Amino acid sequence: MGKERKTIGVLTSGGDAPGMNAAVRAVVRMGINRGFSVVGIRRGYSGLLANDMDDMDLRSVSDILQRGGTVLYSSRCPEFSEQRNIKKAVENCRKAGIDALVTIGGDGTFRGALDLCREGLPCIGLPGTIDNDISSSEYTIGFDTAVNTVVQMVDRVRDTSQSHDRCSVIEVMGRHAGHIALYAGIACGALAVLVPEIEFTIERDVVAKMVSSLRQGKQNFIVMVAEGVGHAPAIAEQIESLTGIDTNAVVLGYVQRGGSPTARERVIASQMGHHAVELIEQGIGKRVVVFRGGKVVDLDIEEALAMHKGIDMDLYRVANDISI
Amino acid sequence: MGKERKTIGVLTSGGDAPGMNAAVRAVVRMGINRGFSVVGIRRGYSGLLANDMDDMDLRSVSDILQRGGTVLYSSRCPEFSEQRNIKKAVENCRKAGIDALVTIGGDGTFRGALDLCREGLPCIGLPGTIDNDISSSEYTIGFDTAVNTVVQMVDRVRDTSQSHDRCSVIEVMGRHAGHIALYAGIACGALAVLVPEIEFTIERDVVAKMVSSLRQGKQNFIVMVAEGVGHAPAIAEQIESLTGIDTNAVVLGYVQRGGSPTARERVIASQMGHHAVELIEQGIGKRVVVFRGGKVVDLDIEEALAMHKGIDMDLYRVANDISI
Amino acid sequence: MGKERKTIGVLTSGGDAPGMNAAVRAVVRMGINRGFSVVGIRRGYSGLLANDMDDMDLRSVSDILQRGGTVLYSSRCPEFSEQRNIKKAVENCRKAGIDALVTIGGDGTFRGALDLCREGLPCIGLPGTIDNDISSSEYTIGFDTAVNTVVQMVDRVRDTSQSHDRCSVIEVMGRHAGHIALYAGIACGALAVLVPEIEFTIERDVVAKMVSSLRQGKQNFIVMVAEGVGHAPAIAEQIESLTGIDTNAVVLGYVQRGGSPTARERVIASQMGHHAVELIEQGIGKRVVVFRGGKVVDLDIEEALAMHKGIDMDLYRVANDISI
Amino acid sequence: MGKERKTIGVLTSGGDAPGMNAAVRAVVRMGINRGFSVVGIRRGYSGLLANDMDDMDLRSVSDILQRGGTVLYSSRCPEFSEQRNIKKAVENCRKAGIDALVTIGGDGTFRGALDLCREGLPCIGLPGTIDNDISSSEYTIGFDTAVNTVVQMVDRVRDTSQSHDRCSVIEVMGRHAGHIALYAGIACGALAVLVPEIEFTIERDVVAKMVSSLRQGKQNFIVMVAEGVGHAPAIAEQIESLTGIDTNAVVLGYVQRGGSPTARERVIASQMGHHAVELIEQGIGKRVVVFRGGKVVDLDIEEALAMHKGIDMDLYRVANDISI
Repeated sequence: MGKERKTIGVLTSGGDAPGMNAAVRAVVRMGINRGFSVVGIRRGYSGLLANDMDDMDLRSVSDILQRGGTVLYSSRCPEFSEQRNIKKAVENCRKAGIDALVTIGGDGTFRGALDLCREGLPCIGLPGTIDNDISSSEYTIGFDTAVNTVVQMVDRVRDTSQSHDRCSVIEVMGRHAGHIALYAGIACGALAVLVPEIEFTIERDVVAKMVSSLRQGKQNFIVMVAEGVGHAPAIAEQIESLTGIDTNAVVLGYVQRGGSPTARERVIASQMGHHAVELIEQGIGKRVVVFRGGKVVDLDIEEALAMHKGIDMDLYRVANDISI
Repeated sequence: MGKERKTIGVLTSGGDAPGMNAAVRAVVRMGINRGFSVVGIRRGYSGLLANDMDDMDLRSVSDILQRGGTVLYSSRCPEFSEQRNIKKAVENCRKAGIDALVTIGGDGTFRGALDLCREGLPCIGLPGTIDNDISSSEYTIGFDTAVNTVVQMVDRVRDTSQSHDRCSVIEVMGRHAGHIALYAGIACGALAVLVPEIEFTIERDVVAKMVSSLRQGKQNFIVMVAEGVGHAPAIAEQIESLTGIDTNAVVLGYVQRGGSPTARERVIASQMGHHAVELIEQGIGKRVVVFRGGKVVDLDIEEALAMHKGIDMDLYRVANDISI
Repeated sequence: MGKERKTIGVLTSGGDAPGMNAAVRAVVRMGINRGFSVVGIRRGYSGLLANDMDDMDLRSVSDILQRGGTVLYSSRCPEFSEQRNIKKAVENCRKAGIDALVTIGGDGTFRGALDLCREGLPCIGLPGTIDNDISSSEYTIGFDTAVNTVVQMVDRVRDTSQSHDRCSVIEVMGRHAGHIALYAGIACGALAVLVPEIEFTIERDVVAKMVSSLRQGKQNFIVMVAEGVGHAPAIAEQIESLTGIDTNAVVLGYVQRGGSPTARERVIASQMGHHAVELIEQGIGKRVVVFRGGKVVDLDIEEALAMHKGIDMDLYRVANDISI
Repeated sequence: MGKERKTIGVLTSGGDAPGMNAAVRAVVRMGINRGFSVVGIRRGYSGLLANDMDDMDLRSVSDILQRGGTVLYSSRCPEFSEQRNIKKAVENCRKAGIDALVTIGGDGTFRGALDLCREGLPCIGLPGTIDNDISSSEYTIGFDTAVNTVVQMVDRVRDTSQSHDRCSVIEVMGRHAGHIALYAGIACGALAVLVPEIEFTIERDVVAKMVSSLRQGKQNFIVMVAEGVGHAPAIAEQIESLTGIDTNAVVLGYVQRGGSPTARERVIASQMGHHAVELIEQGIGKRVVVFRGGKVVDLDIEEALAMHKGIDMDLYRVANDISI
């Protein structure tokens, strides 16, 4: 005779991102309201292997909606590539009575979820990373907050750049992708946006625009650089040596990962967590919940992992057309 | 023999909204880069009637991307409902050499633009209002910033509500629509969201949920109220008299209109301004630029005005399912 | 034979204020580091009467430095004016092994502390209220954060006031005192600051200045009003009827009480909590820790309560001299 | 026969700082209200040598109170150490009709002002630098904003440090002084604060505290490092190699210079600008306006330059006593 209540496990994996807490909260609240028990697993797949987990109730997610980071902690788990660890994780879930798992993270997290599905544990993946580099989703939990953090910091840097007629080269996160740089570049009125997806030369894409812009009377400049294309200090030096304009470098670093999530982050993360429980309720597993066409929808995990997302070329064109 | 350069006029009308400056900037920059002259008209349609306008160059939109409000000023213009004033406006545009007009505002602004089109002046409307109550667009310039402002303020109110085991009733803007209340309600973890689009009773939709939530150990509550359903102080009194729980009211007021636009606001407003100039470049008029399916597209003005947009019922369901 | 370790109790009373948590944290950390046990009493003097208290350790104050409100909760306690309740509170402390008490709040809280001292319980008072209306201290915990909150909100209101050539009347907290209004008025560039400590007429102190300012080309105005002088909507109406200028009212409300404390708030609150424990360590009671001459010092409670602090007239003169 | 109106010149020099605009605004407004003409000199002493200056009226300082940076621009001017340039500057002032000069900047700026005084031009210095390293003043314009910026950024970093059980080493500005590091360290709950004024070893002052703190259950740590003691990445590496705890480095950089000034910044800068004009009105020159004992006062420039200010040792003790 089986137990009456089914149980959902939830974990966050990979780099933490603002809004993960909103997603966890939605899974817990919606899960309990639909009659599930919910178990929180700490430190991602590592915690699953180490049985580091606890029951969650409505109050265990109180007052976390507005907090950055993840109350479930996160970590990377290289051991999870080994088949015997996948089996051990599924075994641990069985022992803990976990019938389905919600995993919040990036494409790596989704691959782990697919492995677990193949061993018989129904999983739902939610896209959580500030980098927006998940191929199947237009939007990832953490991206909106990270871009706003960058914009607020560059607004500050601009004050001092203006006061000194300076050029500032800002290096932002994004791993191999330029999404943060592109969005923040438009939002900050950057003269140039350098991203790994698009070839560029400093001469043509920065210096020539700067010269043309100087003629229009502009005296201070922001150049937005994705970490995937190189380091801000080197680029700043190159610009200064080519133009003679005082140029400094700002590497924004880990500040971009944290902070209270924006409204949009909290709303979409809540929708996604809600949607994950609806899928589990209907007995559906092996799906990722994604944002496509401005909506929260779901896709088969394998299908999702096979997708490719480049940089938004229309947006890049906008960035260029209004930069001077 | 005609003049060589065509001229675009641009104005902001109705209530001001953060991001309007980003849209104006994109129109000016993209216009000039495509070979147009650009004329800024101050104080909306009133300024058009009063010939209150000036040439704009690349530098006249420097350093405005990050500013709330509108550098072109705004006003409501009741005289614009009279046909003779429409004709006068078109006449003023001709005299000023304006070949096409970009108008940024709400549905009322779009109706004015339609009237001008009918008198032979090609117009492009851009959706600008914090209320998100434009029927043809999923998103309006100003909405994201206003919702984030509400959320930041409620995060502050929550501190004090928690310290005193209190219920706080927050009244937000939105005129006849509940979009701000619904989004902010989810983002703030409100116990209940009261909007004009959905019938409710305080007993069932607030008090019953509060009682059930008290049993779970929750001691402080946020109730989000759209201005379209009534006044926060009256609702707070009603809740306090029904539950005995100390309940205060916060009317957020004009603070919601202002502030530096969010990253998303600046990006979408820039895309919209850019798109408006592309339409004019192609000789297309009588369109509105809107956000649909997560993308910037355009529609015929008349078609757009005939559309109807209700509240997002899926989102309302999410709000309810995770509120306790 | 007495116990080895002495015990300090700590509570927050009256209206909550940002920075109270920083003070509580400093008392707990410094107390434990100096060999004391620390007991946290919930909901102020009410909790003392109800024996609502718990032991605190180093980790119970983790991650609270940056939070608004008070983790110890607060309340007003009218019963505390009765002598038998004072005796009961002292009795409860004895039973709980509390040897000295740190009470954080306003002058009312200090009077309660004095009553307890007279019954033999050594107490140290810390000034905590956003209103800065504690007679013995130049600065109270919560004031800096509240003023910054007001300023950030008025910066938003200004955006929309400018866009519409409007006057905005801002009503701020402060009970019977005008400190918040005066500081925020200068920081916001208000045309006029109306406070209960200084007589004014709308005609002379607002309208005449507005007229003179209009002549200089100024088109939008901020008038800062302390809650102690009347309600913003009535004052806005009066200004509009006298000048014909579109005037709106913004009542900032409870938003002013919350929010993450500013750096200064956290630093001074930490110093004060630290100083309180140093006094107790030296066997000194019946003192308040205050800020005078730019420094954290201590005074006898009775002496402190007998002091009088008016509004800073030099600052008021600055406000006036640079307002136009 | 002399001209009727006397003229005040005003400039900002050295590194820009938030609040400089508030000081400039106060000088202009107060100056004009007391019957002076005011001339704004751009780019500090360089502009004085290049005659880069313009008349200012009440409206030329509109809407700048809330802006970071300096509308007068700033620069360093090494040529100003030459006596013939001092003479030239005084000559330029005479030609421009400038009777007295207000210079806003650091000790270097004050030395320039002293040189000008010696050549017969009455000067008043105002302390403006985020570093708070002016020997004669407890407070310098820009410090409060810079510390708050640091604190807000570290609050973000803490989110991600907590989610990953990490140590974060934060490098902040301050040149040869540790004031920003010390204040921000207390406000952020740093485990350790490393400043150039106080000897330390990583082993004793960081690692030993970390070990003791780990025993109490603490899992994540902030170490605050003033730029004057070395680079965060090297220190982070050292900590990681000594403890095995995942440790990252964040160099906050130029973000610390900008941003809308805090309320306190705007108030004190306004008072200082006001005070400078009062001195000039009384025919007093060769003074600096400083903050001492919690008040705005003035000192002889030479006397001021001869003063010495160390780090606040009481505050350092507080930082240490409550850090674990």
